[in-house]
Amino acid sequence: DEFRIYAREIVEKEIEKHAADGLGRVDYALASGGARVVKHSEPFIMKSSSGDVFSLLTNRNAGSSDADKILTPSFGEPGQCFPLKGDSGFVQILLRTAIIPEAFTLEHVAKSVAYDRSSAPKNCRIFGWLHDKKGADLEADREKMFLLTEFIYDLDKSNAQTFDVLESASSRVVNTIRFDFTSNHGKPHTCIYRLRVHGREPSSLVMQS
Amino acid sequence: DEFRIYAREIVEKEIEKHAADGLGRVDYALASGGARVVKHSEPFIMKSSSGDVFSLLTNRNAGSSDADKILTPSFGEPGQCFPLKGDSGFVQILLRTAIIPEAFTLEHVAKSVAYDRSSAPKNCRIFGWLHDKKGADLEADREKMFLLTEFIYDLDKSNAQTFDVLESASSRVVNTIRFDFTSNHGKPHTCIYRLRVHGREPSSLVMQS
Amino acid sequence: DEFRIYAREIVEKEIEKHAADGLGRVDYALASGGARVVKHSEPFIMKSSSGDVFSLLTNRNAGSSDADKILTPSFGEPGQCFPLKGDSGFVQILLRTAIIPEAFTLEHVAKSVAYDRSSAPKNCRIFGWLHDKKGADLEADREKMFLLTEFIYDLDKSNAQTFDVLESASSRVVNTIRFDFTSNHGKPHTCIYRLRVHGREPSSLVMQS
Ligand SMILES: [K+]
Ligand SMILES: [K+]
Ligand SMILES: [K+]
Repeated sequence: DEFRIYAREIVEKEIEKHAADGLGRVDYALASGGARVVKHSEPFIMKSSSGDVFSLLTNRNAGSSDADKILTPSFGEPGQCFPLKGDSGFVQILLRTAIIPEAFTLEHVAKSVAYDRSSAPKNCRIFGWLHDKKGADLEADREKMFLLTEFIYDLDKSNAQTFDVLESASSRVVNTIRFDFTSNHGKPHTCIYRLRVHGREPSSLVMQS
Repeated sequence: DEFRIYAREIVEKEIEKHAADGLGRVDYALASGGARVVKHSEPFIMKSSSGDVFSLLTNRNAGSSDADKILTPSFGEPGQCFPLKGDSGFVQILLRTAIIPEAFTLEHVAKSVAYDRSSAPKNCRIFGWLHDKKGADLEADREKMFLLTEFIYDLDKSNAQTFDVLESASSRVVNTIRFDFTSNHGKPHTCIYRLRVHGREPSSLVMQS
Repeated sequence: DEFRIYAREIVEKEIEKHAADGLGRVDYALASGGARVVKHSEPFIMKSSSGDVFSLLTNRNAGSSDADKILTPSFGEPGQCFPLKGDSGFVQILLRTAIIPEAFTLEHVAKSVAYDRSSAPKNCRIFGWLHDKKGADLEADREKMFLLTEFIYDLDKSNAQTFDVLESASSRVVNTIRFDFTSNHGKPHTCIYRLRVHGREPSSLVMQS
């Protein structure tokens, strides 16, 4: 009986985490929270006659561009991603608000339901900075950019992989991040399913101290 | 081995419930089932430059107004709600069909993924009546209104909280309900994520007797 | 402690399967993967004044027709289906790519959240063939059609029911399937929530040998 209670507790806790966006962690790069993609490398447009029709299909969902797919849940569906040309590229995201970033989660489609996962990014780097909305243009902004983390997305691990911010960047405030991939897992194009940005708002820090 | 079978049974049952809209209970206020919001207090429109951009963002989903968000699943996403001005207000819902209501579920975004939950309703009352589609206008209708339940939404409990119908209202038939909140948890505006209406159809009662 | 580890393992594995489209199996009939409905029997259009408003409601989601609902996840929501006139009919689906089919999954809404499940298909047959896109018209195509499987959808079993391909059809390549139902569970119209097609791509077979 003690055992029954214990087993039920584990199950309920794990399902609660699953229901809370899979990780149970706040995401400041969520489209429904106000984040948006502000810049990206050249998108990949597939022909509907080929076996791969990501872009054309997803474009039918009026009102949400392909780029925004990076900032929305995938719910285990292959194709709910943003395809970019080539095996290297980038996406720049204006976050919901300025935060002190703590970790990032890169998600690809799960192995068990995927047609092919060789379009997943491999070598990745994430940069951040505090974008001044009134002042400087984008090029001036790039000078303020600093490295937040660097990682390899591993196809053999869980499909949502979380990476902590480098110690060198801890406690720095950013409202914009740039996700750079310099290689993928083999395909001529690269698909990004979802990128999440975890952290805390500076004001909550003030309140704690 | 007996233990393995038992553990697996609990897990499968709980996941089945989770997959069945989280509660495994029929909802007569579901938009995909035919319910709709027919009236509400003044909506809150946020500016996209602020940290909170619910309304503007969600308006991009053509074809489903913000009000209908109350009648659709949230899938653990912050922002999938209907924001109303102030800390008090109301929403009036025409149900899928006339029912004998048994309980109501008010849902807000889960704590673990929320930016801020002070926009949740607090003191709530739900009224109901049988709206005559051909006859009386809305004001005449209000005279028929009776109290179905009264509750406080508690931020420390599960994010989907279910409240039974008062005994005084048991076995009365309604096709319209009015959700009234007279306070919230601190924000200048109030967000409603989802309201579900549980019960049984009068005809099924007839068949049982 | 061993027991704790074991219980957690089961839970994580089952939730992983649930998160991977419920079955953890590739679906070549998924709209987001490029499949589409190319032909079907007469659809059923309901009036919004009745208790059942499937078609009118779902038509509001611009860009995705009712027929495509068969090729998208239902996420436990009643009404996320394609309603067809009568108790018999068919749907013809062009798959994402040519495959050797292995099994099919027919899904209806879960009992616990359904208003009424008598619109579910009952006696079903699935046919397949390799459609030549350039050449023959649809009528010529029908001559190439062969039976892949035959089954009864049982309302008392799990809401997603999987049926293997007949031995007589194993290892045959198809890119088009036809789902035929000759009876339903009692309603004057029939609702199809989702049909999945599992199998393997011929090229992967070549690579294995
Ligand atoms: K996505
Ligand atoms: K909602
Ligand atoms: K569906």
